[in-house]
Amino acid sequence: MKSLFLVSTFIAYLSIGIASAQSADPLPSWNDGKAKQSILDFVAKVTKDGSPDFVPPAERIAVFDNDGTLWPENPLPFQLAFVMDELKRRAPKEPKLAADSMVQAALAGDLAKLLEGEHHNGLMRIIGLTHAGMTTDEYQHSVEAWLASAKHPKYDLPYDQLTYQPMQEVLRYLRANGFKTFIVSGGGADFMRVWAERVYGIPPEQVVGSTAQTRFELRESGPVLVKTLEHLFVDDKAGKPVAIHQFIGRRPIASFGNSDGDLAMLQYTTIKNPRPSFGLLVHHTDAQREYAYDSKPKSSGKLVEALQEASERGWTVVDMKQDWTTIFPAAKK
Amino acid sequence: MKSLFLVSTFIAYLSIGIASAQSADPLPSWNDGKAKQSILDFVAKVTKDGSPDFVPPAERIAVFDNDGTLWPENPLPFQLAFVMDELKRRAPKEPKLAADSMVQAALAGDLAKLLEGEHHNGLMRIIGLTHAGMTTDEYQHSVEAWLASAKHPKYDLPYDQLTYQPMQEVLRYLRANGFKTFIVSGGGADFMRVWAERVYGIPPEQVVGSTAQTRFELRESGPVLVKTLEHLFVDDKAGKPVAIHQFIGRRPIASFGNSDGDLAMLQYTTIKNPRPSFGLLVHHTDAQREYAYDSKPKSSGKLVEALQEASERGWTVVDMKQDWTTIFPAAKK
Repeated sequence: MKSLFLVSTFIAYLSIGIASAQSADPLPSWNDGKAKQSILDFVAKVTKDGSPDFVPPAERIAVFDNDGTLWPENPLPFQLAFVMDELKRRAPKEPKLAADSMVQAALAGDLAKLLEGEHHNGLMRIIGLTHAGMTTDEYQHSVEAWLASAKHPKYDLPYDQLTYQPMQEVLRYLRANGFKTFIVSGGGADFMRVWAERVYGIPPEQVVGSTAQTRFELRESGPVLVKTLEHLFVDDKAGKPVAIHQFIGRRPIASFGNSDGDLAMLQYTTIKNPRPSFGLLVHHTDAQREYAYDSKPKSSGKLVEALQEASERGWTVVDMKQDWTTIFPAAKK
Repeated sequence: MKSLFLVSTFIAYLSIGIASAQSADPLPSWNDGKAKQSILDFVAKVTKDGSPDFVPPAERIAVFDNDGTLWPENPLPFQLAFVMDELKRRAPKEPKLAADSMVQAALAGDLAKLLEGEHHNGLMRIIGLTHAGMTTDEYQHSVEAWLASAKHPKYDLPYDQLTYQPMQEVLRYLRANGFKTFIVSGGGADFMRVWAERVYGIPPEQVVGSTAQTRFELRESGPVLVKTLEHLFVDDKAGKPVAIHQFIGRRPIASFGNSDGDLAMLQYTTIKNPRPSFGLLVHHTDAQREYAYDSKPKSSGKLVEALQEASERGWTVVDMKQDWTTIFPAAKK
C-alpha cells in the first residue's frame, strides 16, 4: 500500500508540473485585452472535457491565411518579391527571358503594365516563367536560395525571419491544446511548403495554397514532377472553403485571416457551425512597426467587407498596434 | 530515497509493459515468410536511431491504394455498388431520373452500354447523378445510409466490414512506429472520407482521392458546399504521384498497391529515393476466400506491368492465399 501511495504522490507531482506549465502565459507577445482574452477563452471552452462545448481533438482544425496574417504582405507579397528577384537574377544569363516584354516591364518596375487586362496577363506570365517548366525539386532549390540571400527592403532581414511573433504563439498554443494547424493561403502551396515546417512548425501536408498540376516523368535520373500552369486553382475568396473541403475534408472550428480574401473562410468556419467556433481578423494599424492599411492597401490585403461583418459575427479584430507588444521575433534582440 | 526507488521500480514496470507489448507479433494475420519479414525489416531499418537508414518521423509517409489493397474491388468497386444502389433507391421516387437512358441501362445491368465510348459517358453520367448537385453534407448522409443498409453479395456483410485484416495490421503497425498513413486512391475523396477515420483510423485530411470542385454558397440555413463534376481530377496511374505532391507535398517512403494503376505511385516512392523506401503489391490469388485475378480482372485492378517490374525494383509481392491467415476481421468469429 505504501508503494501505491508513493506512486500516487509521484503522479500528483507530475500533474502539478503540467498544471504549472499551463498556467504560464501562452501568449506573451499579446497585451492583455479583449483580443487576447477571446483566444484564451475559446481554447479553454473547447478543451474542457465533459462540457457541452468540448470538441474532440480530431475536430480541432484551425486554418490560417498566410500573407498579412502570419507574415507581412508589403511592399509586395513576398512570393512576388521572389518572382522579381528571380527575373533579376536570371535575365542577364538568359537572353530569351530578358527579351520578354513582360519581364522587361517587371524589371522596370512597371506594375501597371503587368496588371493590365481582366486576367492580369503580364503578372501571370512572369509568375509562369518563375513557377513552371522546372521540376518541383529545382523550384524548391530556387526558393531556398532566394530565402538565403534576399532581404526585406524595410527590415533588412531575410523574409522568413519576418513572421509575426504573436501569431507564432497562437500556432503553438493551439497545437499544445490538441489543434491541428493548417495554412490556407492564396500563396503557392509549393512556395510555402519549402519553409513552412521550419518556420511555423506546419508540415507540407498541412499547407493548402494555390496550386497547378504537375506532370509525372520517369527520367534516367529518377522520377520527377514537372511544374506546369495547367489546372490552376487560386485559393482565395470562395476558393478557400472549396480548398478546405478538398484538402482537409472537415469544417474548421477556428479561422484566422486579415482581408476580404478570407471572408468566405471565416463565414464557412463560424456561421451555424454545430461546434463552437472562432474567427479572427488581423487589422494592420501599425504604420511604424509594420504597415497601416485596410480599404486601400498598397499591395494585396483589402479589408472592408470582412471588417464590417466582424461585429455581427462576433469575430475578434486584432488592432496590431494596441494588441501586440512585439511584432517580429527579431525585434526581441 | 526509498520513494525514489519505488518510483524507479514503477517506471521500470511500465517500461517492461511497453517492451513486452512491442515484442508481441504486430502482424498476427500474416504467415511467416518473405512478405511479412520485408515489412518488419523495413520498419526496423528506418526507425533505428543513429543508423544511416534512420528516417525522421516527419518524413515517414506511407501511402495506400484503397480498392483491392485495403478492401476488395469485386464484383464491382464498392463505390460503384453505391452508385447502382442509389439509382435503385431513387428511381421509383424520381421520374426524371428513372427516364434517363443511362440510368435505365444501369438498372438493367447493361454495363457494356455504360462503358461505351472513349470517355465512358454513360458511367460518368450515372456517377454524376449520384455524386453532384447536392451539398457535401447531403452526399455524406447518403453514403452513411448506404453503408448502414447495403450488403456485399458474396459475403452478406456491410461493405465497411470487409477491409483486409492483414492490411489493417500494417496500418496500425506503421502508425505505432511514427508513420503517417495516407490513402491515395482512384475512389472519390468525399466517398472515402465518410468512413475512413472510423474504419481505418485515417482522418479526412489524410485521404487523397479523385476530386471535383465544390461551389461555396451562403444559404439561409448556413454555408454549404455544392458538389459539381467540374475540374474533375482522377487520382489514378500518373495522377497518383501528381496528387501525392499536390496533397501531401512530400515524397513517401512506403507505398502499397495492387494494380497497374498504382505503378507510378510505387515508382515515385521507390526509384532513386534518397531515403530507404518500400513498395508492396497485393496479388489477388485466393479465389475461395476472396477473388483471384491479375491480367484479366472482372472489374478494376489489372495487374501486369507492375507485377513484371516488382522483382527488378525489389517490391514485395503478397500472395494473398499463402501470406494471409485471415482476410476479413469478421472471419475471426
